[in-house]
Amino acid sequence: VREDEFRPIVPPVVARHAPTGTLLRAVRRDGPEGLDIALYGVPMDQTTVQRPGARHGPYQAREFSWAVRAGSNSVTGAAPFDLCKVGDIGDAHISHLDDEGTLKNIEEFVQAIVDAGALPLGVGGEHTISLPILRAVAGGERGPVGLVHFDAHPDTIDTMVDYGRYAPGTPFRRSSEEGLTLLDKHVMIGIRGTSYGEELQFAHDNGVTVIGMDELDELRPKGVALKIREIMGDMPVYVTFDMDAIDISAAPGTNFPEPGGLTIREAQGILRGLTGMNIVGADVVCFSPPLDPSGNTALVVNNLMFELLCILAIARTQQV
Amino acid sequence: VREDEFRPIVPPVVARHAPTGTLLRAVRRDGPEGLDIALYGVPMDQTTVQRPGARHGPYQAREFSWAVRAGSNSVTGAAPFDLCKVGDIGDAHISHLDDEGTLKNIEEFVQAIVDAGALPLGVGGEHTISLPILRAVAGGERGPVGLVHFDAHPDTIDTMVDYGRYAPGTPFRRSSEEGLTLLDKHVMIGIRGTSYGEELQFAHDNGVTVIGMDELDELRPKGVALKIREIMGDMPVYVTFDMDAIDISAAPGTNFPEPGGLTIREAQGILRGLTGMNIVGADVVCFSPPLDPSGNTALVVNNLMFELLCILAIARTQQV
Amino acid sequence: VREDEFRPIVPPVVARHAPTGTLLRAVRRDGPEGLDIALYGVPMDQTTVQRPGARHGPYQAREFSWAVRAGSNSVTGAAPFDLCKVGDIGDAHISHLDDEGTLKNIEEFVQAIVDAGALPLGVGGEHTISLPILRAVAGGERGPVGLVHFDAHPDTIDTMVDYGRYAPGTPFRRSSEEGLTLLDKHVMIGIRGTSYGEELQFAHDNGVTVIGMDELDELRPKGVALKIREIMGDMPVYVTFDMDAIDISAAPGTNFPEPGGLTIREAQGILRGLTGMNIVGADVVCFSPPLDPSGNTALVVNNLMFELLCILAIARTQQV
Amino acid sequence: VREDEFRPIVPPVVARHAPTGTLLRAVRRDGPEGLDIALYGVPMDQTTVQRPGARHGPYQAREFSWAVRAGSNSVTGAAPFDLCKVGDIGDAHISHLDDEGTLKNIEEFVQAIVDAGALPLGVGGEHTISLPILRAVAGGERGPVGLVHFDAHPDTIDTMVDYGRYAPGTPFRRSSEEGLTLLDKHVMIGIRGTSYGEELQFAHDNGVTVIGMDELDELRPKGVALKIREIMGDMPVYVTFDMDAIDISAAPGTNFPEPGGLTIREAQGILRGLTGMNIVGADVVCFSPPLDPSGNTALVVNNLMFELLCILAIARTQQV
Amino acid sequence: VREDEFRPIVPPVVARHAPTGTLLRAVRRDGPEGLDIALYGVPMDQTTVQRPGARHGPYQAREFSWAVRAGSNSVTGAAPFDLCKVGDIGDAHISHLDDEGTLKNIEEFVQAIVDAGALPLGVGGEHTISLPILRAVAGGERGPVGLVHFDAHPDTIDTMVDYGRYAPGTPFRRSSEEGLTLLDKHVMIGIRGTSYGEELQFAHDNGVTVIGMDELDELRPKGVALKIREIMGDMPVYVTFDMDAIDISAAPGTNFPEPGGLTIREAQGILRGLTGMNIVGADVVCFSPPLDPSGNTALVVNNLMFELLCILAIARTQQV
Amino acid sequence: VREDEFRPIVPPVVARHAPTGTLLRAVRRDGPEGLDIALYGVPMDQTTVQRPGARHGPYQAREFSWAVRAGSNSVTGAAPFDLCKVGDIGDAHISHLDDEGTLKNIEEFVQAIVDAGALPLGVGGEHTISLPILRAVAGGERGPVGLVHFDAHPDTIDTMVDYGRYAPGTPFRRSSEEGLTLLDKHVMIGIRGTSYGEELQFAHDNGVTVIGMDELDELRPKGVALKIREIMGDMPVYVTFDMDAIDISAAPGTNFPEPGGLTIREAQGILRGLTGMNIVGADVVCFSPPLDPSGNTALVVNNLMFELLCILAIARTQQV
Repeated sequence: VREDEFRPIVPPVVARHAPTGTLLRAVRRDGPEGLDIALYGVPMDQTTVQRPGARHGPYQAREFSWAVRAGSNSVTGAAPFDLCKVGDIGDAHISHLDDEGTLKNIEEFVQAIVDAGALPLGVGGEHTISLPILRAVAGGERGPVGLVHFDAHPDTIDTMVDYGRYAPGTPFRRSSEEGLTLLDKHVMIGIRGTSYGEELQFAHDNGVTVIGMDELDELRPKGVALKIREIMGDMPVYVTFDMDAIDISAAPGTNFPEPGGLTIREAQGILRGLTGMNIVGADVVCFSPPLDPSGNTALVVNNLMFELLCILAIARTQQV
Repeated sequence: VREDEFRPIVPPVVARHAPTGTLLRAVRRDGPEGLDIALYGVPMDQTTVQRPGARHGPYQAREFSWAVRAGSNSVTGAAPFDLCKVGDIGDAHISHLDDEGTLKNIEEFVQAIVDAGALPLGVGGEHTISLPILRAVAGGERGPVGLVHFDAHPDTIDTMVDYGRYAPGTPFRRSSEEGLTLLDKHVMIGIRGTSYGEELQFAHDNGVTVIGMDELDELRPKGVALKIREIMGDMPVYVTFDMDAIDISAAPGTNFPEPGGLTIREAQGILRGLTGMNIVGADVVCFSPPLDPSGNTALVVNNLMFELLCILAIARTQQV
Repeated sequence: VREDEFRPIVPPVVARHAPTGTLLRAVRRDGPEGLDIALYGVPMDQTTVQRPGARHGPYQAREFSWAVRAGSNSVTGAAPFDLCKVGDIGDAHISHLDDEGTLKNIEEFVQAIVDAGALPLGVGGEHTISLPILRAVAGGERGPVGLVHFDAHPDTIDTMVDYGRYAPGTPFRRSSEEGLTLLDKHVMIGIRGTSYGEELQFAHDNGVTVIGMDELDELRPKGVALKIREIMGDMPVYVTFDMDAIDISAAPGTNFPEPGGLTIREAQGILRGLTGMNIVGADVVCFSPPLDPSGNTALVVNNLMFELLCILAIARTQQV
Repeated sequence: VREDEFRPIVPPVVARHAPTGTLLRAVRRDGPEGLDIALYGVPMDQTTVQRPGARHGPYQAREFSWAVRAGSNSVTGAAPFDLCKVGDIGDAHISHLDDEGTLKNIEEFVQAIVDAGALPLGVGGEHTISLPILRAVAGGERGPVGLVHFDAHPDTIDTMVDYGRYAPGTPFRRSSEEGLTLLDKHVMIGIRGTSYGEELQFAHDNGVTVIGMDELDELRPKGVALKIREIMGDMPVYVTFDMDAIDISAAPGTNFPEPGGLTIREAQGILRGLTGMNIVGADVVCFSPPLDPSGNTALVVNNLMFELLCILAIARTQQV
Repeated sequence: VREDEFRPIVPPVVARHAPTGTLLRAVRRDGPEGLDIALYGVPMDQTTVQRPGARHGPYQAREFSWAVRAGSNSVTGAAPFDLCKVGDIGDAHISHLDDEGTLKNIEEFVQAIVDAGALPLGVGGEHTISLPILRAVAGGERGPVGLVHFDAHPDTIDTMVDYGRYAPGTPFRRSSEEGLTLLDKHVMIGIRGTSYGEELQFAHDNGVTVIGMDELDELRPKGVALKIREIMGDMPVYVTFDMDAIDISAAPGTNFPEPGGLTIREAQGILRGLTGMNIVGADVVCFSPPLDPSGNTALVVNNLMFELLCILAIARTQQV
Repeated sequence: VREDEFRPIVPPVVARHAPTGTLLRAVRRDGPEGLDIALYGVPMDQTTVQRPGARHGPYQAREFSWAVRAGSNSVTGAAPFDLCKVGDIGDAHISHLDDEGTLKNIEEFVQAIVDAGALPLGVGGEHTISLPILRAVAGGERGPVGLVHFDAHPDTIDTMVDYGRYAPGTPFRRSSEEGLTLLDKHVMIGIRGTSYGEELQFAHDNGVTVIGMDELDELRPKGVALKIREIMGDMPVYVTFDMDAIDISAAPGTNFPEPGGLTIREAQGILRGLTGMNIVGADVVCFSPPLDPSGNTALVVNNLMFELLCILAIARTQQV
């Protein structure tokens, strides 16, 4: 582990069982300057359709930093804190007065990361936040990104009654309309459950690759990763991970759990299979702490964020 | 218990341990017509400042209808279902697209109750909802009402940063500005906790009667009720009960519990002491089911709603 | 989704996060007349051997109707509410005074469904209830049915000390004795755990097909479904799903969880593999809400009931 | 603490944080012979009207024996294990085949204690069990006993629909009919909540002393104890403690909690005020462990059982 | 609220529902220099006798900083952040290799606070920690302090089998032996429960003032505070608050809850009654987060720490 | 089931839903004499690095004995109580004064089992305890044993800061140094998670067989068992099962859960695959009851202990 100012906060600086108050034990920074990877939170849940609480996601993620050892990945050997300068730059500002203004805040917060030349790794917050994040990541000169999208639901509804066009069920309809993502470079993993039908139809009709549980059973995680690599090639790719992609038994603390999802090992396996791809950012969303008082979902969130950090760190070393 | 169409749903129509799917075991009605007292829900929490979840309040209140015996109050002897025609008319419609429109929906929903000549007894939902309810109850020809206000917090802030003027901390600042409540006929019970000061100062400066825990210790519930009666006299009175008035040990499932609150017995005692007053409506708010998986807070909510029903039923018989 | 009086209760009639107070969002009906599929509850747990609480199963299943989208199955595409007229007809009457009389009540309740020409889909309640249900479904002119039986335990004990011959461990010994089920058309899936031995021996000795976890590992869900189809052919089949078939990690809220059970995906896969079979009824039993305060087991119950509804709806269209 | 074979199981025989597997750390005995006070369990809940689970009461009470120091009462100074030979003799046998036979089993189990000259201190189980216990304690030559009855509900219903004449709501109607208790020597403490009315009317009409929460507020625990002593004089007295007498905030793990009950301190105060009375037995009932996963209610049960043991031990030394 | 570098962390710097990662919203400081009051944690539970987990106390206290408004006390009006420079200086270092060395670490950590002229307000950790804290606070030139001691247990055992002389049951036996506290200036509040007797006898024999629950009932909080003031006069006083002083219903997350304790209001009332005394430090101990997954105990801990901060701040302004 | 004094405690001796107060329903014995297999507990957690609570493991394992049927394994048919005399001999004595002395106590406790010719099957307590157990099992004339080691972490650290050389992360570094285990006969199953790297490097460098989740995915449980059999041959083998080997979804009640672990079925499959090997003892460790209030982890612990008992019983019959 590195010895400079970006050294993560490890024992005995704090007791082994102590949280660091930062994401993944990274140091706290006031802004993205000088970082390779900027960790951040988006405590927004004001447009949540079913069960709220995701606003507490970033804070509980930080509280469970005790469960991370900021060394290496025991499977892939990746050592993200050695490879990169990583810092937690805090949270985007959320205003309940103005949903549109809040989306703008989030976009600007992430734009600053992008402008500083760092890769953003965020934790939500509801899925609505991925739209402004993509506006920063895939807007401007970079252009559209490939989307690796873990989720129980397609989130490609056009307009939700009582929630409108900017809501947790719509971000990837919007992102494709805005030219931030390409529908034929959009891979959904984990889609399942009862459905009103429209959003899934849209995905099928427009060339989105929808990998359901049966296909995952056949391809296994390595096959899924291979398929993603074939689709994406060298293009810049963004990874969005809705925690309800994971089965309710392993991640009950989500806004709308759908029984029958990915095991943690499958999620880990797919993410590790993305190692070496040109990943330009990632988020973990729809994690609602009040719905899992045990904190176990927070432990899983930290675990998956560490896996994302590993593949981001390797991507970053290749991008520079 | 009455034998007509307003007879509450009692065993063996459903098993003793079964909920009726309605508030307080009342029959389900499509509207307030023909009712003396209309029970209803307002599943709104989109402006919640701290911990959300109150949107689930009306549903969990209905689920715990098993814990009510729709007969008489074993202390006061009041038998509200004998005295009055009581029905559950469902929920006001909430839209996340438009906070202002939603407040209008709530107002119109309650206005229909008032127009039908029934007394409204609602369950929230966050405290923001009391403003549109008061617009219906105290607007029009009735004019301003006295306010019996159980709460840990004054909710008389002018404007909340990031939440604005229509938020859970502001309804009674607004209601007094709009002439719906009179500050010298506003009694707060249960105010405590750490404070930013402004809202409490406003209350003290404007003649609101603030009964803190020390005064409650001295006056005891009967004395508090007596004081309220002296202040209110015969005027129409609205009772708003924020569940955080109750101590965290007895009602943990609230948005923002403040340690050191009322015991259930004290709350019951004060409410029973209002028997015979000219009460024109009531609500129970800030009950957030996800924050108490045991359901115990829902049991307390049902208990206090039954106490409110008793005093509303007696008031109703005197008003007609 | 259909537009007649059998249209399920969907948003915005109730808020998206709101339960409908009915099973699977179906409309509430006073009886089975006019229905294709009748949903119902049996809130009985008075003969439970280990941990009681299944009496609350029907009510919590209704409370979690918020988690169902009454559209189509995102994997099989089945749209049960389009195919069939579905209604929730309430609960069979349970008396604690008389176990025998209670079994008779249940039988008559389900007999009315059968007589009305509807398929019954019930939620318990303990496994004892499947005997009187089978008396209605497989008695009379229809004659014996094939039994697809998900369970951790064979439930083929002859007599239980202190519980006798009509208890949760005996229903399928009784049903075979009474000629309601045929032992060589009885397939058990999920049997495991420590055992006193007798009941499993009986199954093996009498031609019951016992599919343990190892065989499931080999056949995978599709192979299990294929095996069931071969055994059953075109005969009428009843599906009984004891929630303890599912692993404790995914369905902890059962009377007697046995570690090492089916994943939700395996259960879904097998059920979907039964599509097109001649299914004449189904139940989900042994779901005990107090043993899982999180409500996650209730979510899984709703999910599996929806899968059952899908295969029942398709069966029904073929039967008419 | 005594040094003979009746010495309770104290550290370091087991670790301080370890349960002893017996009630109140007493030694395990095969029968009541040689004991002054016999502790026992009655794991019955098959007639429970609302929420079951009290069958697990005796076992969880034993699991929380770690929370008892088998020395002296720090307030009254009573040292029951020094005064008396105390043992845990296990549980009465419960059969689900035969409610009447089960009541007979309980009666005979307690009769053996009485015949051995020991005082019985039992833990349930639902309130139904107090009837057969009273048949043993107050039958035969001793004749009727005074009844100190802590409860939220009168339990003096005549017949309960679907439950009949031997159910949790009826034991003290039956005990008075059978001449086991005298209605004018029956004191109820804690009665409250919503009511169907009949049972409370019966109590009032027949000379039962009903001490509600308001009277408790006035008399305070000492006054209540004094009133009980005046009513009972020297007559033999039985104490039955339904855990729902305690407020839901302090004892949520009961079959049917009623908000607004006794604090633990009030219960302790009244029980201590009975010191020196001619107490001939006691039970603690309606404690349902699955309804309080924290185990806190079990801690309170142990605490109150220790208070009962103290007053029984002193009574016993005066009786011999 | 102050505007300099000691301004507490208030919204909108962080969202209203966000923790600050520091105790009571204070700023994070690397050491006590320049502070009037130093907040700190002692994450030690390695000598815990019953249920461990208090090592997590400081971290969960920081996580619940969201529940504090860093303004004024709504009852006393005290505004500690206006009166004093307050900072959170982190945690004393704990080593599991060496209990004695760890006690030395704690002493030196607090000594640095004392030497910097600041008042220490700590959160544990088990009660063992109060001994080294008192060595720093009451050692050296200041000499012995009066001890205001909230606790269910006297903690004045001489030697605990398997735990020895430095354990949670012994700190105040040691502190009196070492001349850090005076037994006739030691006031215990909340002592109750079952007892082995020795420790309480020692207290009674040596002039300790033991205020049990009955005396609290008579004196009420104001009377208790008055009695404390009479005993202490102007001498320097240390306040130690074991969370098990509070009743199990309000603070279940403690190592060894004793039913029948103080209400939160009583604790608040006594603490407020100490306003103006010469208080030189305080701690809150025996708060074990894993034993209360709801976090409610953490909320109460924050509330009581704020009350302590108020009286420390006023004391500090008088001391300078 | 056997009929002699070693007959396990089965219904109706206790109610079916009742725990026996002993491990796996075995009879309670004062010592290992006359036993084939001695069950025991080690309630030690004083060196725990992360979350404590494993001291309560043995007691909660006994409380969940209700969940075991002491007959046969429904998959392998093994009937351990028929094959062997099995008893629960209680707990090793733990002293908090002296970690070294405590390790000696544990060693001597297990040495007595070995000397009596019985096989030890223990339940912890933290992983530190496996070192003294191995000193008894693999010391003396038997010499080094093969180690089948289920764990998320290698536990082969040399020295832990603040915890030293005898801590939960070091036992198998010590056991190899002391010649109790051979590194090339050490098989680790389940290693995963973030890592500091040193301990895993040590394992890889010294010939330990590390089976990660990917290899398990390929080999499946049967292949893993085969590989273990090839490595071990006929040599005496000890099995140590750290509950964190199991995925967090199935065993959340552990000191340090690592997402992505074994399913229960995989663990069962591997253990069953060891049938017939020369197993000389086993333990289950790192089970922390306070971290899983549902008790589900305790159910899994009982299940895996029964699987271990089965393979120990068969080994025992071959060893004699």
